[in-house]
Amino acid sequence: MNAIGIAVSTVIFALRPHPTTRRPVLSIPLVRRTRAPFEGRWALPGGWVDPEESLETTAGRTLVETTGVRPSYLEQLYTFGAPDRSPTGRVVSVVYWALVRPEQIGERTDPAFDSENVGWFVADDLGSPRVPAAKRGDSWGEGDLPDLAFDHDAVVAYALTRLRTKVEYSAIAQGLLGETFTLSELRQVHEAVLDRELDPANFRRQVESSGTIVATGEHVKGGRHRPPRLYRYSTTIPLGETS
Amino acid sequence: MNAIGIAVSTVIFALRPHPTTRRPVLSIPLVRRTRAPFEGRWALPGGWVDPEESLETTAGRTLVETTGVRPSYLEQLYTFGAPDRSPTGRVVSVVYWALVRPEQIGERTDPAFDSENVGWFVADDLGSPRVPAAKRGDSWGEGDLPDLAFDHDAVVAYALTRLRTKVEYSAIAQGLLGETFTLSELRQVHEAVLDRELDPANFRRQVESSGTIVATGEHVKGGRHRPPRLYRYSTTIPLGETS
Repeated sequence: MNAIGIAVSTVIFALRPHPTTRRPVLSIPLVRRTRAPFEGRWALPGGWVDPEESLETTAGRTLVETTGVRPSYLEQLYTFGAPDRSPTGRVVSVVYWALVRPEQIGERTDPAFDSENVGWFVADDLGSPRVPAAKRGDSWGEGDLPDLAFDHDAVVAYALTRLRTKVEYSAIAQGLLGETFTLSELRQVHEAVLDRELDPANFRRQVESSGTIVATGEHVKGGRHRPPRLYRYSTTIPLGETS
Repeated sequence: MNAIGIAVSTVIFALRPHPTTRRPVLSIPLVRRTRAPFEGRWALPGGWVDPEESLETTAGRTLVETTGVRPSYLEQLYTFGAPDRSPTGRVVSVVYWALVRPEQIGERTDPAFDSENVGWFVADDLGSPRVPAAKRGDSWGEGDLPDLAFDHDAVVAYALTRLRTKVEYSAIAQGLLGETFTLSELRQVHEAVLDRELDPANFRRQVESSGTIVATGEHVKGGRHRPPRLYRYSTTIPLGETS
């Protein structure tokens, strides 16, 4: 045995409008710490592992308790354990990541949930420290972009790299959008991952000729004159390795 | 904080002749446990994390101490933390994996190294419990194939799946063989990963036409009449994600 604490943290990705450009971008919720160490700083949602809980159960529980987000999909990302990552004693942190769909963000069922200390940030702003600070905006983290608590900047950067280089677009789209989606929603996912705009007509040609998505025959419900068609992937591809 | 122990274990893959067929197969060294729990059972090399050490340092140190193997490459695989995986209290185990080349296996520099309690096993025998038990053979684990200590059967199975489905052949070959290799050695790597024999002439045609390997202009040193040519990969591909 050894006197090392073991905690779980989770990087949650969702597609949300950028505070200034309003273009949907990969966004991450953070929680403001209300105690030492790093009191007042933003950190990834998480907490200590309860001896009775599996690591994944801890990840799910602490997410709901701190952010109100209840993702349908959680995957272990990496375990961070540098001896100096916490100033108050050795802590090893098993990091999970999750992709959430818009309708999963609003679920704030836990009475302990404290929305004042939750903020959404642009993932790229957190993962690459040299870009300009995020702008103040409704429901976004306020003020200048903070240094995160612990080594959470490095954790976010690692999660972004993994998402961008190791995960299929089909898996990301299903995680962020659900089973069915419009071509315009799918393009927004590709734009958010690539971090640049794509030509809508070219994008449509490309994905339609690739054979990877198929029209479901359904359309978006609502009163529009020409409601957009709904598509799905022709094969379901799992979101990466599971334990 | 929480009273949970944190340990590191490592799955080491090397190419060694199968005890009966003599065909090179993916092989794993295990260490016989000399104390409770699971005294006498085979387990992955590993040990408790020292509060001053990084996780990777613990992995490297415990490997040398228990097996004498000093790999050039270590990568974090997955963290196993089910509440019931050890009968004597909660233990979370950060699992690393390593590929080692033949010349790295012999390095038994640590005086604490105890070769009687180290055995090499066919990876597929350990990772798929229903295949016949490994046969007794020199420098192999003796007797019938054991149930491993803790959840190490599941850990080995997971490591094999990851190796076979997520890692490029080029990275595996470099890890198991080094920078340069003969076509016959490269074929043995492919055969070991696929777990079936390949036709040498077809294999040669395929890899030579693929453009992924190039002749170095060197040959294997030795007194042979026609020493085999040495090849290398045309581009160096890293062995997967690093922290």
